[in-house]
Amino acid sequence: LSTASYLIGIDLGGTAIKAALFDRDLRSIDDVEAHTPAREGPDAVIGAMAGAVTSLLKAAKVSKDDVSGLGLGSPGPLDLDTGCTLDLPNFPGFANVPIRDRLAEAVGLPVVIENDANAAALGEFVCGSGEAVSMIVLLTLGTGVGSGIVQDGRVFHGAHGIAPELGHMIVAPEGAPCECGQRGCLEQYASATALVRHARRLIDREDPDSRLRRGLEERGELTAKSIGEAYRGGDPLAREAWDRLANYLAIGCTNIARICDPDLIVLGGGLAGAGDKLIDPVRERFFDIHWTLTDRKTDIVAATLGNRAGIIGAASLARERFL
Amino acid sequence: LSTASYLIGIDLGGTAIKAALFDRDLRSIDDVEAHTPAREGPDAVIGAMAGAVTSLLKAAKVSKDDVSGLGLGSPGPLDLDTGCTLDLPNFPGFANVPIRDRLAEAVGLPVVIENDANAAALGEFVCGSGEAVSMIVLLTLGTGVGSGIVQDGRVFHGAHGIAPELGHMIVAPEGAPCECGQRGCLEQYASATALVRHARRLIDREDPDSRLRRGLEERGELTAKSIGEAYRGGDPLAREAWDRLANYLAIGCTNIARICDPDLIVLGGGLAGAGDKLIDPVRERFFDIHWTLTDRKTDIVAATLGNRAGIIGAASLARERFL
Repeated sequence: LSTASYLIGIDLGGTAIKAALFDRDLRSIDDVEAHTPAREGPDAVIGAMAGAVTSLLKAAKVSKDDVSGLGLGSPGPLDLDTGCTLDLPNFPGFANVPIRDRLAEAVGLPVVIENDANAAALGEFVCGSGEAVSMIVLLTLGTGVGSGIVQDGRVFHGAHGIAPELGHMIVAPEGAPCECGQRGCLEQYASATALVRHARRLIDREDPDSRLRRGLEERGELTAKSIGEAYRGGDPLAREAWDRLANYLAIGCTNIARICDPDLIVLGGGLAGAGDKLIDPVRERFFDIHWTLTDRKTDIVAATLGNRAGIIGAASLARERFL
Repeated sequence: LSTASYLIGIDLGGTAIKAALFDRDLRSIDDVEAHTPAREGPDAVIGAMAGAVTSLLKAAKVSKDDVSGLGLGSPGPLDLDTGCTLDLPNFPGFANVPIRDRLAEAVGLPVVIENDANAAALGEFVCGSGEAVSMIVLLTLGTGVGSGIVQDGRVFHGAHGIAPELGHMIVAPEGAPCECGQRGCLEQYASATALVRHARRLIDREDPDSRLRRGLEERGELTAKSIGEAYRGGDPLAREAWDRLANYLAIGCTNIARICDPDLIVLGGGLAGAGDKLIDPVRERFFDIHWTLTDRKTDIVAATLGNRAGIIGAASLARERFL
């Protein structure tokens, strides 16, 4: 290998900092994980990222001189031109912090930053489910709904660097209020939080002998995980809750197909991570919605990189920029 | 002027062919219009376009040698790679016709083609409402709802050359059936056709003395034009019909803002052509929908080029490609 051919990707999350070392072909060499001291402010968070990089290089026995650059996938919104955070929810003191330049200074490497969901979309495009196609839209179904659009290797940012926000597409006019101020956002119908709400509503309506209700009373909690398990175990009520989510998600995917017409809509995040049984109803509903104007081409598939998509996408950005 | 610095734009419509000659700064030199012999098949239509070009050059006293190339805005869907029509509704015999190459041969000039709505969006971007910004989304509100997306001078086509189809974004799940096969498409709620339906429903519900009803009985017809006139004259029922349209259009614009985040959403076509009084309620509803996650930046404005947007956009494409 030539000098400076390694790359580092960092995924900055609310609870954990993940850093990984890659070779120029984006093969993973080593990984470290550290606690994110989010409540302690920018100095602590940037220091923790720099510390993770030091640990990573030490563990891999690679000199910093052999690293071309570092890509950071950060929560947003970000100003990508200036490399500053605009305001990070759950990170106090992070309004207008020049996170790119401060990390570069702390680490001693050139840094490129990207919104975490966009980085994940790029990761899936470069090394995951989107490897063989020209355009993907990623939806990450977790507590909320994150999103990213990549065409021909370029991340789409809209006019102001903050698009896309597909979780805040309105799929139910006059529907459930969302934290963003709107009503009826996709996130309110197709996230882990939404799945629990769908299930709770069905349980409240059902007779007291229903399985999910009994399970709830026995285990004392209703979570997206427990609903997903019940659904995979054949529970009809859990299936109904998931179908409700799938129905709205299919509307969202239809709108994505009409607006962007990607090759693939890639479903990732905790909810989609559990496999085909969870994706299939969404695909079914999506293909049930007729569209006769042209041969339909967009398909829906599961993400393949799991929670490593962001870190790979970040390293891929660093490769593009610095190698 | 140097040799071959003129450009020709053609707008192929279902009833009329419009051709215009432009200088290299896209200033209009001359115009001709001809009947579209749509029912007579491809030979007749392509011949009529070539005839229009001949008339145009003769009228302007410009030699074909002084023309760099020709841009054609055509109804779609088109295969832009091969320059073929896929299938043009209202143009019998136009399935898989190599319209680009056949027009080039008939005219003796290099030809570039683009979907008519995309050409109009490019026209507005280059010379109209989008002149000063980096990204616009055009919605043309006519019998249906057409659309185009332009960022940094590039027309967005999605993965398969057919995006965007914003008129078929779903804004009312389980809503009115659309010819495309879906239900609740924007086109069913925010087109001229939709405005008439909104008004008719209100009239049927209203007492027999309502103004719009009396007008309808006197004139014997209810059209988007008559409703627009009644609205501008202060008719409350016409206002209510327009507000209903504006409400759905604002949802569509919100989704466009969340997905694409353009600088401007530009409203064109017959419905929007009547000015601010028609645009203002849409803007009001759009800004009424709260969005707190970032400073909202997308605005809604009226198109400024009217039905010349397409022809200017087509000429602009020819300039980019051939000059």
